[in-house]
Amino acid sequence: MAIRLVEIAQHVQATLQGDAELQISAIAALSSALAGELSFIVEPKYLANLKTTKASAVIMTRELSAHWVGNALLVDDPYLAYAKAAELFKKPTGITSGIHDSVSIGANCQIDPSASIAANVVLGDRVTLGKNVSIGANTVVGNDCSLAANCELKANVTLCDSVTLGKACIVHNGAVLGCDGFGNANDHGRWYKIPQLGGVRIGNDVEIGANSTIDCGALGDTIIEDGVRIDNLVQIAHNVSIGAHTAIAACCGISGSTKIGRHCMLAGQVGIAGHLEICDKVILTGKAMVTRSITKPGIYSSGTGIMDNTAWRKSIVHFRNLDKLVKKIKQLQKNSEVNDELAIRC
Amino acid sequence: MAIRLVEIAQHVQATLQGDAELQISAIAALSSALAGELSFIVEPKYLANLKTTKASAVIMTRELSAHWVGNALLVDDPYLAYAKAAELFKKPTGITSGIHDSVSIGANCQIDPSASIAANVVLGDRVTLGKNVSIGANTVVGNDCSLAANCELKANVTLCDSVTLGKACIVHNGAVLGCDGFGNANDHGRWYKIPQLGGVRIGNDVEIGANSTIDCGALGDTIIEDGVRIDNLVQIAHNVSIGAHTAIAACCGISGSTKIGRHCMLAGQVGIAGHLEICDKVILTGKAMVTRSITKPGIYSSGTGIMDNTAWRKSIVHFRNLDKLVKKIKQLQKNSEVNDELAIRC
Amino acid sequence: MAIRLVEIAQHVQATLQGDAELQISAIAALSSALAGELSFIVEPKYLANLKTTKASAVIMTRELSAHWVGNALLVDDPYLAYAKAAELFKKPTGITSGIHDSVSIGANCQIDPSASIAANVVLGDRVTLGKNVSIGANTVVGNDCSLAANCELKANVTLCDSVTLGKACIVHNGAVLGCDGFGNANDHGRWYKIPQLGGVRIGNDVEIGANSTIDCGALGDTIIEDGVRIDNLVQIAHNVSIGAHTAIAACCGISGSTKIGRHCMLAGQVGIAGHLEICDKVILTGKAMVTRSITKPGIYSSGTGIMDNTAWRKSIVHFRNLDKLVKKIKQLQKNSEVNDELAIRC
Repeated sequence: MAIRLVEIAQHVQATLQGDAELQISAIAALSSALAGELSFIVEPKYLANLKTTKASAVIMTRELSAHWVGNALLVDDPYLAYAKAAELFKKPTGITSGIHDSVSIGANCQIDPSASIAANVVLGDRVTLGKNVSIGANTVVGNDCSLAANCELKANVTLCDSVTLGKACIVHNGAVLGCDGFGNANDHGRWYKIPQLGGVRIGNDVEIGANSTIDCGALGDTIIEDGVRIDNLVQIAHNVSIGAHTAIAACCGISGSTKIGRHCMLAGQVGIAGHLEICDKVILTGKAMVTRSITKPGIYSSGTGIMDNTAWRKSIVHFRNLDKLVKKIKQLQKNSEVNDELAIRC
Repeated sequence: MAIRLVEIAQHVQATLQGDAELQISAIAALSSALAGELSFIVEPKYLANLKTTKASAVIMTRELSAHWVGNALLVDDPYLAYAKAAELFKKPTGITSGIHDSVSIGANCQIDPSASIAANVVLGDRVTLGKNVSIGANTVVGNDCSLAANCELKANVTLCDSVTLGKACIVHNGAVLGCDGFGNANDHGRWYKIPQLGGVRIGNDVEIGANSTIDCGALGDTIIEDGVRIDNLVQIAHNVSIGAHTAIAACCGISGSTKIGRHCMLAGQVGIAGHLEICDKVILTGKAMVTRSITKPGIYSSGTGIMDNTAWRKSIVHFRNLDKLVKKIKQLQKNSEVNDELAIRC
Repeated sequence: MAIRLVEIAQHVQATLQGDAELQISAIAALSSALAGELSFIVEPKYLANLKTTKASAVIMTRELSAHWVGNALLVDDPYLAYAKAAELFKKPTGITSGIHDSVSIGANCQIDPSASIAANVVLGDRVTLGKNVSIGANTVVGNDCSLAANCELKANVTLCDSVTLGKACIVHNGAVLGCDGFGNANDHGRWYKIPQLGGVRIGNDVEIGANSTIDCGALGDTIIEDGVRIDNLVQIAHNVSIGAHTAIAACCGISGSTKIGRHCMLAGQVGIAGHLEICDKVILTGKAMVTRSITKPGIYSSGTGIMDNTAWRKSIVHFRNLDKLVKKIKQLQKNSEVNDELAIRC
């Protein structure tokens, strides 16, 4: 597969500099690109790579083009332009519309004729699949689920009952949506299961990573708004609400009834306790431990980065004894004041 | 669906106050309940919500009923009563007994005629399914597994070989029970796989969350006692033992051969190192890092909660340098003592 | 099943001391072994268990054999010998070569006649399966995947497109290999999905745990070298590279483009930020938070272990205020110097 540079320029709305007819065979990073390939430079700090790259064309800003004499696609946002260019190089998925012979379909389903349903998929009752919906092999969809146009469930996904997906959502392999929340009432030392009666409501253009889990609501729904991106192995508990265009990296856990705002970014392994509110535009760095609501946009962090094990052992002993240490310092301050007085009197 | 208030009162063993014939259509939180719905109040701090709720009836204690003139169900434990009432509002699951045509069944299985086995389930050899056992679509059960009466495996579950479940256990979607533990002997720099020969033994009334993993024992079994509740994305390593009625929230990891007591509660993302003993009635707060055994019931915590990123950067620099700081303070104490003496001599 | 002690001795290359014809029925830990069973002792600290064990034979070093008069298998590395002995006691898996009737196979696949493919497996186009490859029930393999001889995919695994496995790899249940990496370009507040064009390349003798996820590369491949061991619920992001013979315990998360060296060991719940380099022979203790590259082999740690909740609350308040504390100490040092001078002048 090769694509002319001018076609890519049109697709990403770039100003073309150089050979419009150049045949591009692939996209690659500056450092690994070969002749015939297209690359991109996002930040000036990669200018050294630009000097040595074998790429035959590079996506860049007008500013950086002063450092490059070859073929270029000039854009305002090279990273976004790379994302758009990459679309042209996707392999065909082999998805063809139609329903495989082995598919099980429940009662009263509404399936658009353009939908594609792969082998061994099982649909419950009253499932609605919109235009161009695609469901991968061995995926299971429960009762009363609804998938709007252009949704894609990959292979081995599970949707439990009452899960609603807006347009153009992607659910990756092994993800489970609508499973029971962790609701238990204590009955004299034994746990009594609280039936989880709600569903999951997901907006348009949402992506959910492999093996992530999103609980149904206990009462009412768990809500994921438009444009949210959730990575792999993320846990979203019952009745959580996630605002539009928020991105959540792998291995995060969000506890029940917590409400996360719009345009937030959570790095990997963040944990948020239950019943909190995180306002819009909050950035949480990796492993952040959130036990209180956040009312002001900004970057928040917690944890201690790695240290050499020997030094770390000393620091944690002192951490445990911080209260004693603070008391010692207070005593020193008192002594110091007494000494000051005595000194003055001297 | 609507249920008379008197029926709910009987089911949850409440004293009814008000209109016994009231038709209740759903359960909802105080703040979102509509007319015709039942709600509940657990703590006095929600009295403001009670004042403004549109719920037509509320589950509460006798003490709180002084603040409410409407229909009420009076109980000792409103949260438990809500859990019981919610059972009446569960949607039918559509599970019907019988074995789907597409099911594969190994040799020498014993399947109770009341069992329900959904599409594309694969059972190994010598599998035993008790009364009313239900197995969801696309689930796989290995050889020598045994499920007692009323167990439910949801869709896309995997039980490997030699997994035993007591009565009325629920295993949620994507969970894997009995997979190999992480056992490797180092052979001059290369890892030699240690065959994992044990199984998993699970008591009665245990619930295991979506995409959680429970390893089989290396030698002997991994053991989960009666009434244990495990949330989503939890890892239980080989030969772990979890005492009865312990609850483990999402994203926890329990390392090999660790023994957790009864009635413990682990919040999300807790990690426990291997070969430890945690006594009964231990509560571990979120992200707790457990590297030693715990012999005394109580609440244990670790980690540092979020701070503004700029302030946090300062704190972690000081954390790294705590040992130097402690040495400075010791020096100041010495100086102070010398000064004290000098001052006295003055 | 019983095996003569002499056969085990030959298999593990041990010097046999005692009754060569002894029938061994199982392997067990010293503390739980019964008569007729074989056990092993790895470290002198378990000598108390050796005294009381009911095992009929024990694997041990020559040094420890002074403490034991019974049957013994003498070796240099008892843990490795136990691993090898355990192989003799594995239950037959019931895997038989051949392709189940329910299997779906795409176009242009090359399947060795010795391969075993269980019920409801779905293979995409151009899949290559080498000698003795075994694929468990309900597993899905995408287009252009290649599995070399003796690979085993357990049940409910998903391989997406373009995943290559070397010889004798094991992929445990629910694992997902080759899913899309978390690549999003920000387009005026909305996330634009970056197509993930690469694959996953895995060496020989690699083991990947249950419900773990390994993303395909964004451009180029994600790489796992020979002999790597990955436990359950581990996330490996796009374009990560993991050096040969590195072991990664459960619940770890490795962010995009990070390169981990050879012979590293990561304990549970470790998190590593993106675009870092970790050199060979690095050990990271549980929950370590890695935000910078590591250039020197050694043991690295972070986090604070559990404390009683009341004491912990005090320590974290002080942690937040460390900067103020340090300033106080500096002031005290100044005062102390002034006092010293005054004292001297006295």
